[in-house]
Amino acid sequence: MPHAPTDILSRRHGTVRAALRDTGLDAAVIVALPNIAWLSNFAGSSAILVVDHERVTFITDSRYVTSVTEQQSAAHACPGLDLTLVDGSYDATLATVLAGRGYRRVGFEAGHLTVARYRWLESAVSTAAPVPELVALGNTIEVARSIKDAHEIALFRTAGAMLADVTRAVLTLPKLGMTERELALQIDMTIHRAGFEKTAFETIVASGPNAALPHARPTNRTLGEGDLVVLDFGGVYDSYCVDLTRTVVVGPVSDRARDVHDAVRRAHDAAIEATRPGASRFDIDAAARDFLTAAGMGTAFGHGTGHGLGLEIHEDPRISRRAPNVDTSHETVVPGMVFTIEPGAYFPGWGGVRIEDDVLVTEGGVELLTVAPTELISV
Amino acid sequence: MPHAPTDILSRRHGTVRAALRDTGLDAAVIVALPNIAWLSNFAGSSAILVVDHERVTFITDSRYVTSVTEQQSAAHACPGLDLTLVDGSYDATLATVLAGRGYRRVGFEAGHLTVARYRWLESAVSTAAPVPELVALGNTIEVARSIKDAHEIALFRTAGAMLADVTRAVLTLPKLGMTERELALQIDMTIHRAGFEKTAFETIVASGPNAALPHARPTNRTLGEGDLVVLDFGGVYDSYCVDLTRTVVVGPVSDRARDVHDAVRRAHDAAIEATRPGASRFDIDAAARDFLTAAGMGTAFGHGTGHGLGLEIHEDPRISRRAPNVDTSHETVVPGMVFTIEPGAYFPGWGGVRIEDDVLVTEGGVELLTVAPTELISV
Repeated sequence: MPHAPTDILSRRHGTVRAALRDTGLDAAVIVALPNIAWLSNFAGSSAILVVDHERVTFITDSRYVTSVTEQQSAAHACPGLDLTLVDGSYDATLATVLAGRGYRRVGFEAGHLTVARYRWLESAVSTAAPVPELVALGNTIEVARSIKDAHEIALFRTAGAMLADVTRAVLTLPKLGMTERELALQIDMTIHRAGFEKTAFETIVASGPNAALPHARPTNRTLGEGDLVVLDFGGVYDSYCVDLTRTVVVGPVSDRARDVHDAVRRAHDAAIEATRPGASRFDIDAAARDFLTAAGMGTAFGHGTGHGLGLEIHEDPRISRRAPNVDTSHETVVPGMVFTIEPGAYFPGWGGVRIEDDVLVTEGGVELLTVAPTELISV
Repeated sequence: MPHAPTDILSRRHGTVRAALRDTGLDAAVIVALPNIAWLSNFAGSSAILVVDHERVTFITDSRYVTSVTEQQSAAHACPGLDLTLVDGSYDATLATVLAGRGYRRVGFEAGHLTVARYRWLESAVSTAAPVPELVALGNTIEVARSIKDAHEIALFRTAGAMLADVTRAVLTLPKLGMTERELALQIDMTIHRAGFEKTAFETIVASGPNAALPHARPTNRTLGEGDLVVLDFGGVYDSYCVDLTRTVVVGPVSDRARDVHDAVRRAHDAAIEATRPGASRFDIDAAARDFLTAAGMGTAFGHGTGHGLGLEIHEDPRISRRAPNVDTSHETVVPGMVFTIEPGAYFPGWGGVRIEDDVLVTEGGVELLTVAPTELISV
């Protein structure tokens, strides 16, 4: 579970309350678990939060009462917490809370609440006096979460250094004849033994032609001579995710492998160099993309350059192509943002290369959180 | 990825099309990934399906084109598939498909589509001619998924036997002085090495007082003499989840540990005995619960008796208490349903016991899929 100190949680509640004031709301209903974790340190799988101007009503079921109660006597207690046990169902309990408090206007996370739950809730509170009006909240919390505070930055520095250590160990693991699955398993063990609570996602080991699939899952294919092998893995430390990719070669390195790796590595470096406070996230993407395009590999780079990291493995900001239909809000990166830089080049039938690191935007520029070798290694 | 043969996928499409006919719809938009996997064998992380009376429009992005194309020449090809590449964003592409087809009434999964996506889509198709009316679908697909077909039953028999083998190996792993995390890691490795593609959820190893928390995460606590240790783990085989729990004792067994384990074990057996075609899922729960209540442990059993298994680790049917606010639809269990039976008893500060197996409802009664020792083992 996260361990944000009480004063930091207070500041986060302040962010939500400022949004309530700005939009004339009495309270906000929070159903997205990462948002709940960010506001309360809760790490379980079921809860609803109702944040109003004074308190935080925390709805959960009997399974979590002991852990929530224990937390409330610790240094990372959630301030203003009013624990409400589920009676019947979560949403019925929520409706009772909303009706009982006399709220007139209540925000909800339109990006997380399903249509079925919304309609049920709307009907369940329709006989309350007053009937609370349900108002769609924007992504205020997600935007706030994208800028990490001192507590989170300290965690990321620790987790980044741990992942760099893991990477040095991982680069010694691939062997000719090993299956992708066995290698993935050894990477997972390395991540666990390093002190991460779990892997941040299903580890990718993609060899030979499989390396041309950016989202390949490990198979029973064995590593063969000359194969490029993409290794993409990450860990969760105190609930925060870090993520890294390296690509190695089995045995002798062909000219083409060297050329592709070199181009991707220089694109990766160019994007990191382009990262500074005030830079456009589209320009950071372009720094990598333009380099690969100039090298004749533009069409081989089909995905975005990076994604934010935090309580989720993919969050804001998205370091992506400026294109029609792409959301252009919050274009500028600011100090405290943590995201990946992960250009790649993929050639169906042949293979591919991706190199990924995690960076923190600082007042002065950029800090590389995952300092580990990026040169092409032959195993 | 799942490998349902083409004729089975055709039958599943038939289920959706029958629901379209019954409700006067031209098409259904499917956004829930497990529903997409069930209808198409797709195992990636981003896609939208539009099922109409003739074809299945499959919207995905460039990352998945190669794997979808490869699948279409295999024995598990998705019939009637019309691959449509994302242009801009997924939802913009969906709006274009809906507008371009002339649909008048289109169903959507109200239990999965968020309010924000729904409102965006509604606005995006508002200039189409005709303007498609968006109609909330019930849980037709989830209900259909809860009754496994021959292909799935064969998978479950294999996966259940594999998990039973894993269990026999796991019961030899706990040692005095080992941390919960190290034990969880060894269990995970056993699951991977047995041939599962991944663990079905984060393995639970809860020792001593931690065993009183039904959803404990492994900690650095070491196993101590006399501890009860709850081991709850599962694997994913060809995209299907199986799930099992055993509770062991470290060293000498106290009378209380033996009594609690014995009561939970008999509750577990009673629930399995109560499972047969036509039985109420509430009565199966009551079989376990009444037994524990008679043993004076009714309040120590706070959760439901079981949950359905399939492409998700928790799906229909829910084997739960009959109570106000509990959804009473689809009360009867029928042949082809696969679910867990997992009563437990938890005593804060002392510890707890849970015993879980997976069962298949057959024409003749019930089949235990995970045949592994349930007696109390001292390690």
